[in-house]
Amino acid sequence: MIEHYQAVVSFIMELEKLKNVERRIKPLGLSRYENSAEHSWQVALMAISLAPYAEQKVDILKVVTMLLVHDIVEIDTGDKFAYDAAHDDYENELQSAQRLFAILPAQQEQKFLALWVEFEQSTSPEALYAKSIDRMMPVLQNLNNGGQSWLEHNVSVAQILKKNSVIRQSHPKLWDWISEQVIAVGNKVGLARE
Amino acid sequence: MIEHYQAVVSFIMELEKLKNVERRIKPLGLSRYENSAEHSWQVALMAISLAPYAEQKVDILKVVTMLLVHDIVEIDTGDKFAYDAAHDDYENELQSAQRLFAILPAQQEQKFLALWVEFEQSTSPEALYAKSIDRMMPVLQNLNNGGQSWLEHNVSVAQILKKNSVIRQSHPKLWDWISEQVIAVGNKVGLARE
Repeated sequence: MIEHYQAVVSFIMELEKLKNVERRIKPLGLSRYENSAEHSWQVALMAISLAPYAEQKVDILKVVTMLLVHDIVEIDTGDKFAYDAAHDDYENELQSAQRLFAILPAQQEQKFLALWVEFEQSTSPEALYAKSIDRMMPVLQNLNNGGQSWLEHNVSVAQILKKNSVIRQSHPKLWDWISEQVIAVGNKVGLARE
Repeated sequence: MIEHYQAVVSFIMELEKLKNVERRIKPLGLSRYENSAEHSWQVALMAISLAPYAEQKVDILKVVTMLLVHDIVEIDTGDKFAYDAAHDDYENELQSAQRLFAILPAQQEQKFLALWVEFEQSTSPEALYAKSIDRMMPVLQNLNNGGQSWLEHNVSVAQILKKNSVIRQSHPKLWDWISEQVIAVGNKVGLARE
């Protein structure tokens, strides 16, 4: 039993490093950039808050677990900006996932790794639900902070709508509502259309 | 439907403020203090990671939901240090919980508020499990960073063991292991015994 506790504690202490991984968005009202640990908290809570309005019934504990672990690979690889051409870094991220989850007892290592892969490959309703929340969050933040990270990285309205259309698969009505706002805010703050 | 989405998004955007609530502990290797949002992520993930080793079967989604919302009241009240005489701030925190959860659709407002109260009152196995993880985390951080927040606030070994004995109720073997380390690290870094 003690060796299992030791393994879980080692894993959790290794995850301290995610608090130092910087994203491209700034939390509302703050001058610093957000880190991936606080982002992970917010998407997990959003997933639970939106659960009653899901179009398809999903296992919310599975969704939440995916969201709590989905970014920990950035401890090794750093955050990749969604609109960068080099956004896809699956092989490196998989190596990191394998390294990090191997700190855990074997049973949990396998479970977490499988969830992480499922999220990345978006192969289940839970993964699509989780992925759509993860994508939605910086859009909502940008809609509320004058398009800060979109402006800093010259992202166009068309890019935003294309990149985040995955949201439509699990939250179609929500995405319709958000995409209208993207167009309005894009016009207001002067984003390029294409 | 749209008004429900609007309510959930307003709630999640209000929670941005938790990223600016400072705790007394520093994440390992960082010179800044931790904020309550990243702490909430870490305890939620620890709760899931420890689930297979729980002494009593608990509803982990309930535990995780409690941990994701337990600190949001600090948006209004700030973080209270566990060892402060004025640690108990229940009435103010309850007011804040009522204000924040009222942003949500009514059904979720009631559910989240009930979970928050249950956590505070530690009236169920889930609340005890969640509370013990919340208490455990800064102990583990201090064990790994040379007792930083204990030293900064002159906390004694006896205070640490007393304040965190709630951990014994849901994780007795884990607490035995941790409390041995508290005594060892306390001696090493020169904490007062009483």
